[in-house]
Amino acid sequence: MSAPMHETRLRSATREVVIGRQHRFCLIGERINPTGRRIFQDQIRAGDLSAVERDVASQVAGGADVLDVNMGVPLVDEAELLAKVVTMIQGLTDLPLCIDSSVVEALEAGLAAYDGRALVNSITAEDERMEQILPLVKKYDAAVIALPNDVDEIPMEPDKRLALVEKIVRVATTEYGIPIEDIVIDPLAMPIGADVTTGLATLETMRRIRDTYGLNMTCGSSNVSFGMPGRHELNGTFLSMAMTAGLTSAIMDTRTPEVVSAVKATDLLMGHDEWGMAWISRHRAAQAAAT
Amino acid sequence: MSAPMHETRLRSATREVVIGRQHRFCLIGERINPTGRRIFQDQIRAGDLSAVERDVASQVAGGADVLDVNMGVPLVDEAELLAKVVTMIQGLTDLPLCIDSSVVEALEAGLAAYDGRALVNSITAEDERMEQILPLVKKYDAAVIALPNDVDEIPMEPDKRLALVEKIVRVATTEYGIPIEDIVIDPLAMPIGADVTTGLATLETMRRIRDTYGLNMTCGSSNVSFGMPGRHELNGTFLSMAMTAGLTSAIMDTRTPEVVSAVKATDLLMGHDEWGMAWISRHRAAQAAAT
Repeated sequence: MSAPMHETRLRSATREVVIGRQHRFCLIGERINPTGRRIFQDQIRAGDLSAVERDVASQVAGGADVLDVNMGVPLVDEAELLAKVVTMIQGLTDLPLCIDSSVVEALEAGLAAYDGRALVNSITAEDERMEQILPLVKKYDAAVIALPNDVDEIPMEPDKRLALVEKIVRVATTEYGIPIEDIVIDPLAMPIGADVTTGLATLETMRRIRDTYGLNMTCGSSNVSFGMPGRHELNGTFLSMAMTAGLTSAIMDTRTPEVVSAVKATDLLMGHDEWGMAWISRHRAAQAAAT
Repeated sequence: MSAPMHETRLRSATREVVIGRQHRFCLIGERINPTGRRIFQDQIRAGDLSAVERDVASQVAGGADVLDVNMGVPLVDEAELLAKVVTMIQGLTDLPLCIDSSVVEALEAGLAAYDGRALVNSITAEDERMEQILPLVKKYDAAVIALPNDVDEIPMEPDKRLALVEKIVRVATTEYGIPIEDIVIDPLAMPIGADVTTGLATLETMRRIRDTYGLNMTCGSSNVSFGMPGRHELNGTFLSMAMTAGLTSAIMDTRTPEVVSAVKATDLLMGHDEWGMAWISRHRAAQAAAT
């Protein structure tokens, strides 16, 4: 428990968000993504970006602290589109952005269009991904999400994941000069329905990353419940448990109040909501909306 | 993490319940208690115990694994009443019982009327309580809930609570010959609304009790949310967090599905619900009830 508690600072032109264990949990809203949304994809190809506007508004209303932006649409120039959408979103909200793409050129175009300190989503421990993306992270003074998986496998054992985290930290800090506090690890929460032991393994991985490196962590909140009923409740419960193990942010659709609520309750119980004011306000707003 | 994982075995005449970290969380249903229920108290004075029957049925239906029985009614012979109710409940359910009283004679009468291994609720670290109650725990081969508070204070600091746990364990095992696995610590969860730092302090106390002694733990699930809105959600979230810190049971009203559900989700995520069958069944039953 002697590792420092790193703080990851993200910024838009006018607002800073700090991810860290002394701060309330950071919600990265992830709806701005055409994957699996055929109508949205057709609109984008027709030059209609109105869905982006609605998605930004709904993620902000749901309580997002940062917005994840992914514009992977088949048969579209992703770099050009992502730059355009990043520019557009900066006119809609002052929340910092997480620039999300599997295409290196798109990441670069998105970063170039962004005025602030973005979060880049994502690298893995694969040499090629690090070689391509870490220079961009450095050049644009961004932070980066890193997944502890390698070319050949997504290891389940905490030891193997820790070894890949060690590699990522070593390469990013010593070879590319990325400050350690700008590395945010996604420890890869796997579906509990496939193997009920993965929950504890993920929590152990998180505790070890926290205690060994003091790194911030994020995860997709919905993987864990894949194939199960009661998904929102499982997702929220998992985040509460993971927050006690060092998880400091999650990538999630903030339109799901059950999951946001679980995070806010955990913030309160972890002492990150002075006098419970945020929790109480949330309940007053919910009551007002219900009447 | 090298402390053994103790198992506390409770029994009725025909059923055993094991509290322990390798087992699913133990729900101790606590509704069978006239405190604050004026009608119930009047009925008891008039010899009408029909409310006990309803309370047993509703706690069992809610998923209780053990039933807490308290019969503290002003102006009533609590020892006689508790013995009578303990006898009655053994004809209604095969769940093991937790015999709950602040009156030593009532505890003894309840234990004498019980056929099995009961849980006794409760001792503190006060010498007088231990001297009065631990011989009964030994005589009736029961397990016992112990609260780490002393005559003069309920300490908030984990160090002080650990020191009181040490005293309880030492006295109970060496002076009264109680096996360590039959001591269940209630680490005293305090209201978060009074002081938002108490949540983390309680979780740290739990982790240290687990890692130092491997003892089972229980707590009242509703204290933590006292004075706050959204109490069920806070209570459920707190239990999920506490389960990752070593809490293995809770004393709660199982008629609150939100809290029971949080426990069941956590059981699944901790690998205590093979294939998720209990979670899936619970959702099927809820769906069937809703249609």
